[in-house]
Order: sequence, then C-alpha cells, then structure tokens
Amino acid sequence: MRLNPPYLMFLGDAPDQLAAKTAQGVVDWRADICMAQLRLTGCNADLGLPDMSLEEAAEKGAKTLIVGVANRGGKISPQWAAVLIKAMELGFDIASGLHNRLRDVPGVAEAAATHGRQLFDVRHPTESFSVARGSKRPGKRLLPVGTDCSVGKMYTALALTKEMQGRGMKASFRATGQTGIFIAGEGVSVDAVVADFISGATESLCPANDADHWDVVEGQGSLFHASFAGVTIGLIHGAQPDAIVLCHEPTRTHMRGLPDFPIPDLRHCIETHLNAARLTNPEVKCVGIAINTKALSEDEANRLLAKTEAELGLPTVDPVRTGVGRLVDALP
Amino acid sequence: MRLNPPYLMFLGDAPDQLAAKTAQGVVDWRADICMAQLRLTGCNADLGLPDMSLEEAAEKGAKTLIVGVANRGGKISPQWAAVLIKAMELGFDIASGLHNRLRDVPGVAEAAATHGRQLFDVRHPTESFSVARGSKRPGKRLLPVGTDCSVGKMYTALALTKEMQGRGMKASFRATGQTGIFIAGEGVSVDAVVADFISGATESLCPANDADHWDVVEGQGSLFHASFAGVTIGLIHGAQPDAIVLCHEPTRTHMRGLPDFPIPDLRHCIETHLNAARLTNPEVKCVGIAINTKALSEDEANRLLAKTEAELGLPTVDPVRTGVGRLVDALP
Repeated sequence: MRLNPPYLMFLGDAPDQLAAKTAQGVVDWRADICMAQLRLTGCNADLGLPDMSLEEAAEKGAKTLIVGVANRGGKISPQWAAVLIKAMELGFDIASGLHNRLRDVPGVAEAAATHGRQLFDVRHPTESFSVARGSKRPGKRLLPVGTDCSVGKMYTALALTKEMQGRGMKASFRATGQTGIFIAGEGVSVDAVVADFISGATESLCPANDADHWDVVEGQGSLFHASFAGVTIGLIHGAQPDAIVLCHEPTRTHMRGLPDFPIPDLRHCIETHLNAARLTNPEVKCVGIAINTKALSEDEANRLLAKTEAELGLPTVDPVRTGVGRLVDALP
Repeated sequence: MRLNPPYLMFLGDAPDQLAAKTAQGVVDWRADICMAQLRLTGCNADLGLPDMSLEEAAEKGAKTLIVGVANRGGKISPQWAAVLIKAMELGFDIASGLHNRLRDVPGVAEAAATHGRQLFDVRHPTESFSVARGSKRPGKRLLPVGTDCSVGKMYTALALTKEMQGRGMKASFRATGQTGIFIAGEGVSVDAVVADFISGATESLCPANDADHWDVVEGQGSLFHASFAGVTIGLIHGAQPDAIVLCHEPTRTHMRGLPDFPIPDLRHCIETHLNAARLTNPEVKCVGIAINTKALSEDEANRLLAKTEAELGLPTVDPVRTGVGRLVDALP
C-alpha cells in the first residue's frame, strides 16, 4: 500500500470540524501534499485549504482523493458514492479511513476496475503477515507509549521524526493508524490485524535498516487499557524499541471509555512498558516524557513539566509548547 | 456457534497419527459424543473408534462431521470435497479446524444452502465482538497461563473442569482454540479475532454468571512468547481471572519456534502474568503449577514436582500423573 500524492481532501457533508479530525491531522503534518479540499453542501468543516472541484484538482495534478472524515450513521450516502465514482473517472485513486470498505459501496469496485484505479481502505489491512520472529534486527527504533489511548502518541512520534530529520539524522515515521497512514502514505492499522499477527505485522512495518537509522513507530493504546493492551504489547514486541517515550494527558480522570479504571502512576507505567519491551530488546530505555498540556495555562504547564521531570528524573516536554529536542538529545 | 453431537470424526487420508492430533484430543475428552471415525484410502491415523461410512453414521444418528485433521499442502482435495458434499446430502453439519474456509471449497457452500446444513469454521470467528468494557462481572474465573505455547494449558483447563464438576462445583470449560471448541461444542478462536477485540471476545466467552460458578478458560500463548503475547494479555484482561495456574514443560530448551528466546524463570513468569491480570482483577492469585512431565521418568518427575513446590511454595502437580485435585483445593 503506497498512496500517491498530491491529495484532494474530501470532507463530504461533515457536520462539524471534529468530524474532519483525521483530515485536519493530515493537513497539519503534510500541507506539502494536501492540494485542496472538496466540500459538499452542508459541510461545516474547513481545513483552510483552497476549495476545488474534482475537475479542477485533477487538472492541477491531484492523484488521490482522501476520505478522512467520519460519515453520518456509518453508511456512505449515494451522494458520496457519486463523488467517489466521478473521481475515479477523472483519474483519482481513493483512500478511505472509514469503517465501511470502499468496495462495499455500490458501483465503486466496478468503477475502480473500469478505470484502473486503486482503492485503499487504510483501516483494513489486506496484506498477509507472518508470525513474528522476535529476532533482533539492525537499525534503531523509538516507540511512544502512553498512560492511556489518545494522549498524543502520534503527534509525539511525528514531532520526533521531524526533529531528527531536521538534525540530519536518518529517521522514518512508521504509521500504525489511519491518520498516520494518510500522513506517511503507507503503514499498517495494527489494531485491525488478526490477533496472531500483531507483532509480525509490526516487524514488517519497521524491518532491518541501517545501523544508524531510526524508525519512529506510531504507538497505540496502553498496557493499562483493558480493551486494547493486546495491540499495545504486540506492537512493543514487534517494534523491539531501543527507546520509549511516555505520553500523558494530565487532565484525564479515568482511562478512555472505561470509567472504572484510573490513570496509572507515571513511574509504574514506564516500568511496566519497559518490562514488556525487554522481552525483545533487553537494552530498551525510557528517554523521556511527553505531556499534552493543551488544557493547562502556560504557568500550570511549566510547573507540571518541571515537577514531573524532578520526580522521575527524565526529560519532560510538551511537544507543542517546548518541542521534543530534549528527547532527541537523550536518545541512546 | 453451537456444534450438534454426536460427531463423526473425519480423518481423510491423514499421513500419520500426528496429523490427527486435534481429532485425538476430542476423542480423549469427549468419547461420549464421538460416535465413529471415517477414514479414506491412505489414512494412517486411528482414533480407536469404530470405522463407519457416512451412510452408517447418519443412520445411527451422527449429526456433525468433524474435520479435525491437518490436510496436505493446505489445499482441500477434490476427494475430501466430495465427502463433505455427500455428508451434507445425508444430513450432517460440517465443522472444520482447517486454515482454509469450508465455503471456499468448490461446491460446499452450494451444498450447505441446498440441504440447509451449517458450516462451522472454528478457526474463523464470524461473530461481531464489542470492545472490552473491563468492568468486574459476577462469577469466578480460572485461567491457565504458560511459560510457553503448547505446554498443556488446554489439558490442564479440561482436567480442572472435570475435577471441579466431579466435586459438584459449578464449572464450565470455555474454549479459545480449535480443539477446545470441538470438545466444548462452542467457543471462540481468540487468536483469529481482530486485534482490537481480543479482550472483548473473551468477555463474551465467559460472561456474568452465578457467584459460585467457575469459568475455566482455555489459555493461549505466553507473555514471554514474542509472537503471541498480544493474544495472551488480551485473554487475561478479558477473562479477569480470580485464579491462574502456571503450566510448564520442563524439557523445552527455548520458546516454541523462537530459538533466540530462553524459557522464563517460573517465579518471574508467575509474577509477570499476575501483574497483567491485576489490571482487571486486583485480587487474582496463582493457585499452583501444572508441569507436563511426560518426557521424564517417574522418579525424575516426582523429584521435579517436589523441588518446584518447595522453591515456589505453591501446589505443583502433573495433571496426568497426579491429577489436579490439589489445585482445586487451593482455589479461593
């Protein structure tokens, strides 16, 4: 799976900005390949890109229509289907982050076949993966882990990759979720892989590489999340990280979606993730902590970062407020 | 998914007894529902059951043809397909533990539709599962865990269930793999579930129950197996065990399929599994150790059991040589 840029971002009739969260993430990180947006009547989201019709975008060289928006009621409307089919007539491939598969939308598979276009359902891995081997392979790997889901692991991974590349280091972002895949143009939705192959899929995502090359693997879930820890540990074992960064959101009162479960203590959380990671890389270390302080004032944020750093003895940053340079400084 | 007994065990042209390992496991535990075996020319396996033709078994009331044998080269031969189709004409449902899906065998889906028969691919869950909730639910649960894969977790779970039922306790075996599903007549192959739903599928497998009822959940993998730990931790979190039993095979020199990985120390292995289990059941305890001493002499076996028991301070049994009574005595 390899998506062709540039992208035309399809927002459909997204009712609000939140429904276009995935598309916004792609624009935030890959403005260079996001040519324009296509909005239908009733769309209340705006990515700040030029609005273009399919025809205009095709003429200007856009190659892939990105469906990075949540659709209403889990159904793709006939109106959306017509846009997808028209896009393929005009030369676009289609990449979708919807739960529904593109080929299940009436007319879409036929149009792809007729016009020789590709359909990418980034939530639905189509490759066959091998069972993980577990053998140590060349190259270095960094994996953000989290106290919870949705605490900034993808943002941290992207910020780390950018910082490393900016310093002239060899570094690649490796996407494991839908937004990350649109950003990287490739990757594997590891939470959608068959359970036996979580680690194997991760091994194939960040294969052997130059000894001084860093794969920065997008993290998923948390070992403290009772719904998703299987994905997390498989990702950890497959990535064989040399370094982990703990990501945290300080205003969360319980684990996402699980009111019974408290947020774990940071030190305990780091130790638990390191213990799991040692199975496939005994040398793994935690190089620091990334806290999403968006909900705090500047003063509160600075106090929290300083306090956490003092308590845990690890560089503690907010990727947005302070950047991640100090985490890169601490890499082994 | 609920398989109808009695079973006719189909061995096809199994080249040796090992190829019929799954079928043998079903006969070992459920002789009461295994009416007969059906062997084709070239079959070198024997379950010790009466040989019957499809017609004879149908006439005597067999309801389900169990394909509990490995097929050569991963392809179902035309000869096998003819047997499956004929069986459905005669009234059988078909349950298969093959990697291939029954409906992908030419003619099989059509015959099932024509004759109103059911096809059960026990390796391929067809239900839709929910994401795990993690909430504590009534009833008690016991989960065997392992130092490695294939160390006797299913055997131990079945022996524990039998012992508990023999004492008049309320106990149900909950199957998580193909052999277990044939034995129980129902269950979920958790290693074949989409990664996000491992824990959720396990929750649905052993739902809320009477306060004094024990679900004995078939274990899978090991937290020390770099290929499959995702399945193991998801199973642990979903089962919320009140008690675990550590299963071990003492002659194993490295983790199954992974020559780079040593077998973990037993105490460390127990602690690691308990730490994971505490997330969804802080009261979990390890009630003992089950060692498969088949490869040892009687003397060696007794010495090993005594030594392990003394070192770890936990009842240590071989389910075959000593039975599992002392583990049941130790249940909370």
